[in-house]
Amino acid sequence: MRKYLLPAFLACSLSVSAQQENDSLQLRHLASEILRHSKAYSDLKVLTQEVGGRLAGSPQMVKAEQWGEKALKAANADTVYLQECQVPHWVRGEKEEVRIISRRRDFIPPLNVLALGNSVGSGATGVTAPVLEVSSFEDLEAKKDQVKGKIVFYNYPFNPEFIRTFESYGDAVKYRGRGASQAAKYGALAVVVRSMTHGANNLPHTGAMAYNDSFPRIPAVAIGLEDADMLSNRLKGESDMKLYLRTSCRMLPDTTGHNVIAELRGTEHPEQIITVGGHLDSWDVNEGAHDDGTGCVQSIEIIRAFKARGIRPKHTIRVVLFANEENGTRGGRKYADVAKAKGEQHLFALESDAGGFTPRGFSFEMPAEKRAKILSWAPLFKPYDVYEFEAVGGGVDVGQLAAAMGTPIGELLPDSQRYFDLHHAANDVFEAVNKRELELGAFSMAALIYLVDKYGL
Amino acid sequence: MRKYLLPAFLACSLSVSAQQENDSLQLRHLASEILRHSKAYSDLKVLTQEVGGRLAGSPQMVKAEQWGEKALKAANADTVYLQECQVPHWVRGEKEEVRIISRRRDFIPPLNVLALGNSVGSGATGVTAPVLEVSSFEDLEAKKDQVKGKIVFYNYPFNPEFIRTFESYGDAVKYRGRGASQAAKYGALAVVVRSMTHGANNLPHTGAMAYNDSFPRIPAVAIGLEDADMLSNRLKGESDMKLYLRTSCRMLPDTTGHNVIAELRGTEHPEQIITVGGHLDSWDVNEGAHDDGTGCVQSIEIIRAFKARGIRPKHTIRVVLFANEENGTRGGRKYADVAKAKGEQHLFALESDAGGFTPRGFSFEMPAEKRAKILSWAPLFKPYDVYEFEAVGGGVDVGQLAAAMGTPIGELLPDSQRYFDLHHAANDVFEAVNKRELELGAFSMAALIYLVDKYGL
Repeated sequence: MRKYLLPAFLACSLSVSAQQENDSLQLRHLASEILRHSKAYSDLKVLTQEVGGRLAGSPQMVKAEQWGEKALKAANADTVYLQECQVPHWVRGEKEEVRIISRRRDFIPPLNVLALGNSVGSGATGVTAPVLEVSSFEDLEAKKDQVKGKIVFYNYPFNPEFIRTFESYGDAVKYRGRGASQAAKYGALAVVVRSMTHGANNLPHTGAMAYNDSFPRIPAVAIGLEDADMLSNRLKGESDMKLYLRTSCRMLPDTTGHNVIAELRGTEHPEQIITVGGHLDSWDVNEGAHDDGTGCVQSIEIIRAFKARGIRPKHTIRVVLFANEENGTRGGRKYADVAKAKGEQHLFALESDAGGFTPRGFSFEMPAEKRAKILSWAPLFKPYDVYEFEAVGGGVDVGQLAAAMGTPIGELLPDSQRYFDLHHAANDVFEAVNKRELELGAFSMAALIYLVDKYGL
Repeated sequence: MRKYLLPAFLACSLSVSAQQENDSLQLRHLASEILRHSKAYSDLKVLTQEVGGRLAGSPQMVKAEQWGEKALKAANADTVYLQECQVPHWVRGEKEEVRIISRRRDFIPPLNVLALGNSVGSGATGVTAPVLEVSSFEDLEAKKDQVKGKIVFYNYPFNPEFIRTFESYGDAVKYRGRGASQAAKYGALAVVVRSMTHGANNLPHTGAMAYNDSFPRIPAVAIGLEDADMLSNRLKGESDMKLYLRTSCRMLPDTTGHNVIAELRGTEHPEQIITVGGHLDSWDVNEGAHDDGTGCVQSIEIIRAFKARGIRPKHTIRVVLFANEENGTRGGRKYADVAKAKGEQHLFALESDAGGFTPRGFSFEMPAEKRAKILSWAPLFKPYDVYEFEAVGGGVDVGQLAAAMGTPIGELLPDSQRYFDLHHAANDVFEAVNKRELELGAFSMAALIYLVDKYGL
């Protein structure tokens, strides 16, 4: 690939050198504006520390929507409005507990657990049952005759050999997402899942799961790595050990949330829309800083910086803070449904939902000729150490637009090494975000939006 | 540059594709070994938390040398030995304090200060004097008639517009290094320097300074950004405000330290040496985690990983934990002096002294044809998101070898965004290091050393 692309790219870069010189200067001005005057970090502080965790349906969801409206207005958007959207309303409840019940009668502190999002509660008496550890779905199949009446413990390790950690996540997350129903199929009473993390601590990482309606709905919790290792070791010596598991989470009827939307109206093609956004909701157990407060404040920063620099886009730039990504993707779906119903023209949609770490590039999902056009801009990003333009992918929220209307999409690719240390865990807090890393991500997104607006796709 | 280099590089990469496939596999094995079994993080924990800050001449220096010997032996080096080296012996003393003395008589807490390394103490009575704020050396020149009898306050901001933060440091550090003597030249009694950091906190950052013997030696301290802004604001309304400054630091006679050295003996050219290292000393006010515990443990990890993978190098690989970089570069100088005196042949020397963050590439200082050879290996690093091979530079310690013998040198280039948040400040501690980021740096270094050993330079 490289050998065919590069000569073409060189020819291109020579022919447009004067133009690229001007673009290079514009990007430098944008970078300076953002690195000197960005509000992204201070916006994030308010969202994370004053609003806090903001799961769909929670009181904090409403506060977050109010925050978003206010921040977008303060960023000097031309218009700010709410798009109503039905969202799931799952609540964790008061109690979640897993205890080891051992004949040894030694004192064992309760495990550090978090119920998985969307899972059912255990009922007030909880579940007490022997434990079956499995290393994978294949192992579960092999042991299917032993599953009935047990609590299944998925102890699949997060693979450290992938360099980009989202690949480790993609490899392991199926046990969180589908593990409960796979085990219920064979008569399991509940599941305990090893958290999807490399984190050198014992924090459990929650996240969405989904039931397959062909099987009973059983409780599901995540545990941290230290507890998972301890439980596994203990089971080796004491196979008749039991677990007591209790959760009081439950799914309530859908409720009303909102996508928070702002626009910079296009001067030449206002009917053609470039969307950029992140999701406003987060899990309830943390401040939703990297997931995805950073994507929200970076998107808002694009409006602020464009206005501050006097950039008047040709196309309409629309910032969307999506209502519900974590446990339903309802925000993205609603946005795409409305866009399709209205027959809107969407030129490009960009998402930031992989953390506010130092940017390394973007992934894209679009036809080859559009990719090639973006790749021709790569030299403009080199001074900012943003070099990856060949990865394939796009965010979950803008992915709904791609699915509904074939919109070309992209996602910011930040350095991924620290993301799964805190993803969906209690330590995803404001202090875990570095101001400059956040701002460089915002700049990279602003620069890409600037070029897409200027040259089209 | 790019347009001339790339076609040559492509031709090269096509002709050696089978060879590169084998190299690619070897690198993948090295990466897996390090990401699964590295001791770098646990080694770092001992160095930072059990030894702690280890300024040259301190009791911790001796403990750090013992730690280094032990860790290198545990990594399975063929030989481990100490190279004696005279090092400076500066001590901070008991007392360092700066207070604002105001006619307003409001309560002002003492500033958060650190004496600069190598600076003289103020004497027991301290210095009490009016303050002259200057924004730069040019501003100092313009105000030189006002300097006499004053405490000069260098309030030069760390420039946020540089993308690679070492450029901001290079731009600002002269006020720490030479500010005292420049001010003493015009009769200043002491200097207070704004810290070289973007950090969103009030931590002062120490670091080495040097006196120009033509002028009196005056005390010098660093203050954090919040105090610097407060002091500057206060001076605007109260120009006759004074500072009371007291430090009790002092330089003692040189003492004996050691470069800690280990070797994997070469199988074909044992007389040809590839050096790789970091510096063992650190400032006294933190745990010296990123500066430069990470460089030490990454270098040690190369030996462990080579042995674990059964890699027997053709050339001698020599790991050096340099005795004293922070306030004298005596370790690097000693190593280069001995190498030159013995007529040693040095093929290449690599350093890691820019933090244990996610690696992005390397800088090099070597003739163009050697650079081109290394650049031809760039595709092998692409799967690891290590892409920068064109930067110019080399570390301070291996720089002594380059200066003495013209040895080709290089330095690991990690992501630099977080480095100056903690460089030479109290927060450079173990917890600021991410295990995977550290390991990916160790892998990048191991991979480069592997290739230099295999193909020469």
